[in-house]
Amino acid sequence: MFGVTILGNNSALPAYDRHPTSQLVTINDQLLLIDCGEGTQMQIARYRIRHSKIAHILISHLHGDHYFGLIGLITSMGLLGREHPLNLYAPADLLDIIQLQLKVASTTLPFPLQFHALTEEGLILDQPKLRIDCFQTIHRIPCWGFLITEKKKPRKIIREKVLEYGIPAAFYENLKMGEDYRTKSGEIIANELVTYANHPNRSYAFCADTLYTENFLDKIKGATMIYHETTYLKDLEERAFARFHSTTTQAASIAAKAMAQKLLIGHFSSKYEKLDQFLSEAREGFPNTDLAIEGVTYLIPN
Amino acid sequence: MFGVTILGNNSALPAYDRHPTSQLVTINDQLLLIDCGEGTQMQIARYRIRHSKIAHILISHLHGDHYFGLIGLITSMGLLGREHPLNLYAPADLLDIIQLQLKVASTTLPFPLQFHALTEEGLILDQPKLRIDCFQTIHRIPCWGFLITEKKKPRKIIREKVLEYGIPAAFYENLKMGEDYRTKSGEIIANELVTYANHPNRSYAFCADTLYTENFLDKIKGATMIYHETTYLKDLEERAFARFHSTTTQAASIAAKAMAQKLLIGHFSSKYEKLDQFLSEAREGFPNTDLAIEGVTYLIPN
Repeated sequence: MFGVTILGNNSALPAYDRHPTSQLVTINDQLLLIDCGEGTQMQIARYRIRHSKIAHILISHLHGDHYFGLIGLITSMGLLGREHPLNLYAPADLLDIIQLQLKVASTTLPFPLQFHALTEEGLILDQPKLRIDCFQTIHRIPCWGFLITEKKKPRKIIREKVLEYGIPAAFYENLKMGEDYRTKSGEIIANELVTYANHPNRSYAFCADTLYTENFLDKIKGATMIYHETTYLKDLEERAFARFHSTTTQAASIAAKAMAQKLLIGHFSSKYEKLDQFLSEAREGFPNTDLAIEGVTYLIPN
Repeated sequence: MFGVTILGNNSALPAYDRHPTSQLVTINDQLLLIDCGEGTQMQIARYRIRHSKIAHILISHLHGDHYFGLIGLITSMGLLGREHPLNLYAPADLLDIIQLQLKVASTTLPFPLQFHALTEEGLILDQPKLRIDCFQTIHRIPCWGFLITEKKKPRKIIREKVLEYGIPAAFYENLKMGEDYRTKSGEIIANELVTYANHPNRSYAFCADTLYTENFLDKIKGATMIYHETTYLKDLEERAFARFHSTTTQAASIAAKAMAQKLLIGHFSSKYEKLDQFLSEAREGFPNTDLAIEGVTYLIPN
């Protein structure tokens, strides 16, 4: 399973029982948390998510609606006796805040908190079945988007070709992982000649808070599903720009230009009680759009 | 009206839709907030409280379940355009935390945040109709309780006595405020000879987190209503002591020794789903006890 569960879909001010930003990504039985607004630990409890399974937390930027719930979640994990490491990827200042809050409470976490400061674009997590890259968006303060990519499954072997090239069965596993074969005489048999891809790698691009920009378009091009904020409807484009946010039309435009299969929109302003118009406006520009609704899991399409 | 509305009644870990500590005191149309655990701003919205009317916030200590919701509440007040001052009474380190969190967000509050560090026991707020004193409890880190006292209403004039002493009508308002009268010949007419108290001053003592101690008993003696924590039932007295918390029996004992009219108990451990036994155990030692239930307002008795 590769999907995103929405824990908070609202912008800065909580309203209408909508909460500040938080999303849970499930990938290969691993849980990743993206952003952690106030109340995220209560949302995790509400939706019966086992937070002990969260090994990585990504924080896009240090506006409160994206991280004020983090210290509560972390200290609750500690009170519940977590011992295994928690990895935190965030702007460097967050570590100072956490350390200060732990110090004044005379609290020591019973688990290792492994902090990874976001400083430049690129790879931040590399596992056998998963990689995460970060990229910069344009917001009032430094802000990061995240691209979460399933690593390719083992390639399929083309039986008649491996026989034709005389590749020994002992090397088949290496072929599946994408390696070329070198014959005894030093000849290279390109992997693509004897295998084919199992299926394309799926990916999820979380574009955080941002004004409309194509600056990071190359980073998310071809992502299977994109989350893009739409704080405002299209008639408030000027306000969106002034506040470093985006509109429905702009989110749809980015998804189209990135050639995504699917778009998820969220970070709705508290000025809107109903969300229908967000959906209809975004779908004008990108038909396969969904609203990010709290408690709902959106699967990354195959 | 003089009453306390419970916004959070649970201890450190939120559970069973019970929230970390926060209480709203209404006194003479003024709102005071005591403690501000994570999610307090959502609770304020849920119970339709106008947070713009909160002028004073008291924070007992810097364990997260008593203040992690403060920064969110403060920044939301700012986003909603508050301009009038907010007074904050708390351990000194809280100001560092707030300032760091505002700095990393490049945020300036649009209203004055007047910070009053709690450093010694005694008067912290003195208004014509209200006074607040703080006192130290015994907890794992420095922790403060608060005594909120209605100031005496104007005294009643004893008509035959003012005539008997020949006090001019122009001085009646001073008499009502408790002043003695000085005659032209220099004689002092004690206020008590010509007036009587309208009714006794009511007070509410919030005893924060504490292990069982009589150290602050003299500070809360005679308080009309006392809030005392009861993290555990009476069978877990050792655990309570080890964690600097109290039991039902201990809370009742303090209320009885302080000769309070009423006791409110809260800060229930997440290990308990049902609260009935808290009530029955506390009532054994102090019959006029109520559970602090979220969303309920408890009036200070006359």
